[in-house]
Amino acid sequence: MAIVTENLQLYCRKAAEQAKSASRILANLSAEVKDRWLRHAADQLENSTAGLLAANALDLELAPVYGLSEAAMDRLRLSEARIAAMAKGLREIAALPDPIGEILEGSRRPNGLEIAKVRVPLGTVFFIYESRPNVTVDAAAICVKSGNAVILRGGKEAMHSSAALVTGLNEAASVCGIPPGAVQIIETTDREAVGHLLKMPELIDVVIPRGGKGLIERVVAEARMPVLKHFDGNCHVYVDREADAEMAEAVLVNSKCHRLGVCNACESLLIHADVAQQLLPRLGAALQAHGIEIRGDEATCELLAAALPATAEDWYAEYLGPTISCKVVASLDEAVAHINRYGSHHTDAIITNNVLTAREFVRQIDSAAVMVNASTRFNDGGEFGLGAEIGISTDKFHARGPCGLKELTSYKYVVYGSGQVRH
Amino acid sequence: MAIVTENLQLYCRKAAEQAKSASRILANLSAEVKDRWLRHAADQLENSTAGLLAANALDLELAPVYGLSEAAMDRLRLSEARIAAMAKGLREIAALPDPIGEILEGSRRPNGLEIAKVRVPLGTVFFIYESRPNVTVDAAAICVKSGNAVILRGGKEAMHSSAALVTGLNEAASVCGIPPGAVQIIETTDREAVGHLLKMPELIDVVIPRGGKGLIERVVAEARMPVLKHFDGNCHVYVDREADAEMAEAVLVNSKCHRLGVCNACESLLIHADVAQQLLPRLGAALQAHGIEIRGDEATCELLAAALPATAEDWYAEYLGPTISCKVVASLDEAVAHINRYGSHHTDAIITNNVLTAREFVRQIDSAAVMVNASTRFNDGGEFGLGAEIGISTDKFHARGPCGLKELTSYKYVVYGSGQVRH
Repeated sequence: MAIVTENLQLYCRKAAEQAKSASRILANLSAEVKDRWLRHAADQLENSTAGLLAANALDLELAPVYGLSEAAMDRLRLSEARIAAMAKGLREIAALPDPIGEILEGSRRPNGLEIAKVRVPLGTVFFIYESRPNVTVDAAAICVKSGNAVILRGGKEAMHSSAALVTGLNEAASVCGIPPGAVQIIETTDREAVGHLLKMPELIDVVIPRGGKGLIERVVAEARMPVLKHFDGNCHVYVDREADAEMAEAVLVNSKCHRLGVCNACESLLIHADVAQQLLPRLGAALQAHGIEIRGDEATCELLAAALPATAEDWYAEYLGPTISCKVVASLDEAVAHINRYGSHHTDAIITNNVLTAREFVRQIDSAAVMVNASTRFNDGGEFGLGAEIGISTDKFHARGPCGLKELTSYKYVVYGSGQVRH
Repeated sequence: MAIVTENLQLYCRKAAEQAKSASRILANLSAEVKDRWLRHAADQLENSTAGLLAANALDLELAPVYGLSEAAMDRLRLSEARIAAMAKGLREIAALPDPIGEILEGSRRPNGLEIAKVRVPLGTVFFIYESRPNVTVDAAAICVKSGNAVILRGGKEAMHSSAALVTGLNEAASVCGIPPGAVQIIETTDREAVGHLLKMPELIDVVIPRGGKGLIERVVAEARMPVLKHFDGNCHVYVDREADAEMAEAVLVNSKCHRLGVCNACESLLIHADVAQQLLPRLGAALQAHGIEIRGDEATCELLAAALPATAEDWYAEYLGPTISCKVVASLDEAVAHINRYGSHHTDAIITNNVLTAREFVRQIDSAAVMVNASTRFNDGGEFGLGAEIGISTDKFHARGPCGLKELTSYKYVVYGSGQVRH
């Protein structure tokens, strides 16, 4: 693997130019060619399991140098089963319908012009992400299937693994008619590479940073092209005064405890004062049975002996771990105001049997996904039926919520006439 | 009119906070309320014609100080008829369907969850534009009808006129249930105001700059929120070897000469070498009859005595005036490569009788609108049936081409369940 130390800007520009050239060809490739590549790449990865494991071993060897936790090392580790799972993912993406060329709208105008709004790729995607190697494969597949070229910038912790995976994808590409430059990975740990690429809006159409808050803020500050942000998830479950107790417990526990470190995990519980005395001890016990620490307001601490007092920072916190904040609210309005103020507009749920209350919650909550009587964990491309996802957008612009193939596309207007001129 | 000289940042923050508060109310206002305001505002403007003309007179008086050209002064000038036209525009927007609440997609998942993707407003729009006062009224109407609050920043040349128009809109708002802060105008000529507002992504959801290249580049560089760009239009007409001569002349002349200073005007003519000798003299004469200067490549200059030699800058130029560049190309591929390289991805047209050539042009041209046998002038919200437009996006991200009500919206996922949890 070449670590570039000089002429970094030139290296980046060359990559971006190759991506742009490839994107012009990719935009008009048939689904047949793209899907053949995806299936061939799946075979290729499975057939090079030994080589992939060897590359992965290099990353695992370096993991202590980077100070990786046991959990992070587990996410980094490849195995035969995990490589097979990546291959399965590629075959699933191959089976999805091609989004490109879809006619989104169309009309015949009074003057006879026929206007169609046709889905096209965005062009080139710069994807910056963290250490799990499978993200490399997923992202490459989703970008190319949606007709985009992609420049990947993975975490340094997985660099050998990711580079080996990209080599596999590109070996398949070269025999399937996918243009060179469609999938590239930045093979340097120099952070300046990101800075250079963010300043090439004429070559890169969108940047997708997926990682910690620091990374995303840096990208937003430096990027001269649009940014699709995968920001934090401070998600709420609000238990209404007319909630079903059993449902409230089941949905809350699932939202909080199903997986602790994910963006759609519940980080804050709100409960209506009318039912707090009766219900909060039950909910608190259920959370504690899963090892969750509760940080509550005064009313919560009175009802739950084990709760610790919450500070103002707790209402903003995305714990991504075994902690939840909890607040007793006097009304739906207070719950809504709290969520819109402290939340991150990601995913928020209400538990209620009252349809008017549910409707009001849905109307007022300004989040990518609003759940009524369902776990926050369902805000996910797979669960929503998108088939594959490159991230969950916390923006309102362009795409909101899970981003799959369609969210990596734009459109163009195609107008057919017979010599019409404007009067 | 208050010109703020100190505490400018505070003034801007206050405006943005008011806009954000208003946007939360606007998001859930019924179409009835919004449309009542639009109709009432139309009456209000017509009833205050005298006051509006007086405010406009102040701007016209200052115009020489700002060095406005005759054409610019004409665009700035209000009249009874122009005020009536603004009122008519408001009534037309009132008659358009409300985009908010539309269900874009929906499905029932295998686990019984019902998922709907529902159209919602973006939130708050910061709109920066130039001197024509009618843009003030149009933009306010389009933003509020689509459920957004708007902060307007017009050109200093029209400041008195725009402020008087906004006063009229807000008098109508206060009696129609539109929240205060829904429509605000920045009443200072201090350029720093723009800089302050561009650094408030938590309060402003999108910025739309509409003006010269310098303004847009500044906004892109400084904005910490998404930018919807209305950039330049270097539009092409390509006359294919199988073009109908009469149609080619009519469409070219309309594309170039219908209005010289607009973004969808043709700035460059490409013609296939096989028909250049026969057709270019006719096209050149037609352009020259409209006072258009032609700057051509060598082949053009050989065929047209009056043509001046083009330089490399001419291929990039958006003249916005009585000049056109012209190049003879050897093939469709050369035309496509030229357009994708030098064009601004705005609007490009082909004149051809060959359907395969037309299809190939449509596939390969990477522009917001691709016209077959129709004038470039048709790339316009009104002509495309959008009803109203706030600009023409040259971005691929979020919205491309004419931006009307729908292009100022986002969506949220609304999920109804009966206690579902994720396994």
